[in-house]
Amino acid sequence: MMSKIRILQAIVAGLTYLLALLTKVVVSQKGRPHQQKSAEEEENERFGLSWRVAVEANNVCPWRTVPPRCYHHLQNYMCAGQYERDLNLVVEHILIYASQIQLSSDGMDAWILDVDDTCISNVSYYKAKRFGCEPFDSTIFKAWIMKGMCPANPAVRLLFNTLKERGFKLFLLTGRDQATLSAITTHNLHTQGFVGYQRLILRSPEYKGQGAVKYKSAIRKEIEREGYRIWGNVGDQWSDLQGECSGKRTFKLPNPMYFIS
Amino acid sequence: MMSKIRILQAIVAGLTYLLALLTKVVVSQKGRPHQQKSAEEEENERFGLSWRVAVEANNVCPWRTVPPRCYHHLQNYMCAGQYERDLNLVVEHILIYASQIQLSSDGMDAWILDVDDTCISNVSYYKAKRFGCEPFDSTIFKAWIMKGMCPANPAVRLLFNTLKERGFKLFLLTGRDQATLSAITTHNLHTQGFVGYQRLILRSPEYKGQGAVKYKSAIRKEIEREGYRIWGNVGDQWSDLQGECSGKRTFKLPNPMYFIS
Repeated sequence: MMSKIRILQAIVAGLTYLLALLTKVVVSQKGRPHQQKSAEEEENERFGLSWRVAVEANNVCPWRTVPPRCYHHLQNYMCAGQYERDLNLVVEHILIYASQIQLSSDGMDAWILDVDDTCISNVSYYKAKRFGCEPFDSTIFKAWIMKGMCPANPAVRLLFNTLKERGFKLFLLTGRDQATLSAITTHNLHTQGFVGYQRLILRSPEYKGQGAVKYKSAIRKEIEREGYRIWGNVGDQWSDLQGECSGKRTFKLPNPMYFIS
Repeated sequence: MMSKIRILQAIVAGLTYLLALLTKVVVSQKGRPHQQKSAEEEENERFGLSWRVAVEANNVCPWRTVPPRCYHHLQNYMCAGQYERDLNLVVEHILIYASQIQLSSDGMDAWILDVDDTCISNVSYYKAKRFGCEPFDSTIFKAWIMKGMCPANPAVRLLFNTLKERGFKLFLLTGRDQATLSAITTHNLHTQGFVGYQRLILRSPEYKGQGAVKYKSAIRKEIEREGYRIWGNVGDQWSDLQGECSGKRTFKLPNPMYFIS
């Protein structure tokens, strides 16, 4: 009888051990980022991915807000590292391209960089607007800008410094209003490490109300008229990169949160 | 003593039941697409995502093969539904754009469509080439093409038919060699439901060896010279969409597997 009890005790001990082991596996799986999602969440995730790729390839017709079902995808994309990874990879390829350029000694080799969500980031503002799922609010946005607290995109700051060291003349070209935002923009860029550029160009009264493509084309044309060769043009909006004198090569930085025509 | 044994038996039964339950949970979790990935697999997955987005936005410098670490990401992307989802979303937006166009009654409203991996698909060939991680093999590719078995991209066939019904004149413009591939391409397109187009244009001897941008620009220029208005231009390569007379609006279909300059 005693031996029977011992056998049963051994079985119980063995089963308890297996149980503990299995519990550990289940708990560790539950704790992972890939927890089970509902069918709707999976569907929204896939749609968000499609939306983002379509936006980056400029396939989406002009849009005012991000489809609400993309919210969780964009939140994850913007805040969990993938956005930075995407930025880093693009900058890596810009630097490969730049390294192949033979600069002349006349100091007229130029590069255009956009400001908002290129050099410095407005993700903080857009976070509060559900990453673009809620409409743009110009008053709140201006208040945010006026703080002068937009952080640098580190990858773009690295690009900026590398291009500058190689001898490119850097033109920062922004749709921000010259009359009201010139001082704070200069300050913000400076505190974030963007120093030593050739020129910061903001939207002067004569370009007020114009679309970005028209305004930025006119400025680039002027830069080329001065004799500069625009080797590269980097922005987060397709409207930074389209139109005349767009540069020998353009690069579209990721931005699935808003669209400027 | 007997009651002790009964208690132990009950414990064993209970533990066995729990064990079975937990085993079921673990097995069902293992069967899900989101199984545990190694840190390296996670890293490659994220890189694959960045790579794909960079390619679609035309940020990657000319490339011959896909980085090998993207293989699993691309395999999953091309074969598990996301590629079709991406195609569907782009076609949805093309149709929104097309629906806003006022066609004239002169029959000169035109649309350009690329053939390979736009109308019809070569994914079968690329599957055997690890989705572009292995170099392009022109002999094997030609043998594949000569079968005339490229399946339609259903989303693009829907686009084709919708544009045709709306009255657009459809021009299929391909870099395929006219002398050797004209008959099989016509046949393949026909069996896959691409009928009623205005013209299928293959690469004639005078364009042999020319880059896609130059060749396709020359053909589009000719089409415009005939009096056609090119409202839209759809292809899976940026070289389908760049250059002269590119159309009032271009759309880049997804293709992370190869690059044609």
